Amino acid sequence: MKVGILGSGVVGQTIGAKLVERGEDVVLGTRSPTQLENQRGRAPSLREWLEKTQNKARVATFQEAARHGEIVINATSGADSLKALELAGEANLATKILIDVANPLDFSRGMPPSLLVCNTDSLAEQIQRAFPTAKVVKTLNTTNALVMVDPGQVAGGDHDLFVSGNDAAAKSRVIDLLQQWFGWRSVIDLGDITTARGAEMLLPIWVQLLGALGTPMFNFRIAR
Amino acid sequence: MKVGILGSGVVGQTIGAKLVERGEDVVLGTRSPTQLENQRGRAPSLREWLEKTQNKARVATFQEAARHGEIVINATSGADSLKALELAGEANLATKILIDVANPLDFSRGMPPSLLVCNTDSLAEQIQRAFPTAKVVKTLNTTNALVMVDPGQVAGGDHDLFVSGNDAAAKSRVIDLLQQWFGWRSVIDLGDITTARGAEMLLPIWVQLLGALGTPMFNFRIAR
Repeated sequence: MKVGILGSGVVGQTIGAKLVERGEDVVLGTRSPTQLENQRGRAPSLREWLEKTQNKARVATFQEAARHGEIVINATSGADSLKALELAGEANLATKILIDVANPLDFSRGMPPSLLVCNTDSLAEQIQRAFPTAKVVKTLNTTNALVMVDPGQVAGGDHDLFVSGNDAAAKSRVIDLLQQWFGWRSVIDLGDITTARGAEMLLPIWVQLLGALGTPMFNFRIAR
Repeated sequence: MKVGILGSGVVGQTIGAKLVERGEDVVLGTRSPTQLENQRGRAPSLREWLEKTQNKARVATFQEAARHGEIVINATSGADSLKALELAGEANLATKILIDVANPLDFSRGMPPSLLVCNTDSLAEQIQRAFPTAKVVKTLNTTNALVMVDPGQVAGGDHDLFVSGNDAAAKSRVIDLLQQWFGWRSVIDLGDITTARGAEMLLPIWVQLLGALGTPMFNFRIAR
């Protein structure tokens, strides 16, 4: 399947490499596709990423990545997501499933980060309002990139993921893909896109747990 | 032990009845201690509660309950907590452990509730600032009242609770009490009182999960 990934940091690179490994046709979109040698935040350079994927993927602009994708994944940092999606272009997102894995983290006050939007709104809702014909599905934002693409690394995969979105068929498709691509066995459908508020508001305790446990290799499980 | 519980709704009544059962000397504080026949929100009347506790507990004002307690539990609704604690009186809270189980839920916009304070502040921090010599410990707010006092009802008790607070000895004492009183086996210390932001921000997804799962008998477990 043709997948466009927006964002070349740890999350975009990790998801992208996994999808290439799964045989998908990936284009990774970034603001500066010609700067292959620069480190990408905490992530390696895109030259290294391309080598890791055995040059089976391409690096391109946000616009080209979104145009390429039958499905588009927003893996940009939450503070930049709306700008990146504007650059991707409404026409390239229209009617497509847009998987939003970003968190609107605000590092401007230092650590730990707070949220740029929460409680009565969410990043996922902002994206859905800005791109009304895209089928926004919020998911994967509640766990570390390594766990996103390999949930079995934590407690044998016995933990939960959440999805929020207005389009039932899109959510159902995404739940299937999460299973096929990454092996997610338990995905809880929270409801419409407004329920992304709850999923994004897990981030503050996620950051505190990272400190308390001393590792990002954990995840939420809903004991029943 | 002498315990003062502030709040006569479902949470205060449930915790109070359990502590009486455990042999503690409980005074339940309420704004209207003489109105024993009125229903208390979704909870039964205090007449029924006293009968349930075989009249081993007392119902009194917030002030009397706080004065009585070696340990005080804030089980009022979050929107009313600061007012109730003012009525309890700073002198009756000074240097005591104040277990804060309330959530600052805002029902004024309808369902689902949003939070009155979050992200860069929390109810627990507001309480700690208003009562600087009290040892505020935030806990129990992330689960239903029935689960609070009997965690074994969900998945055999294999799930987690959180504590936040500035006083390490007070948190350690509360962790012991949670085990003795209710049987909590796993309590994660998130850090100082500012980490209550994360615990309170679990409420939106808790409410969504209540809808998605159709039962309040669940809890968060941190898979590791």
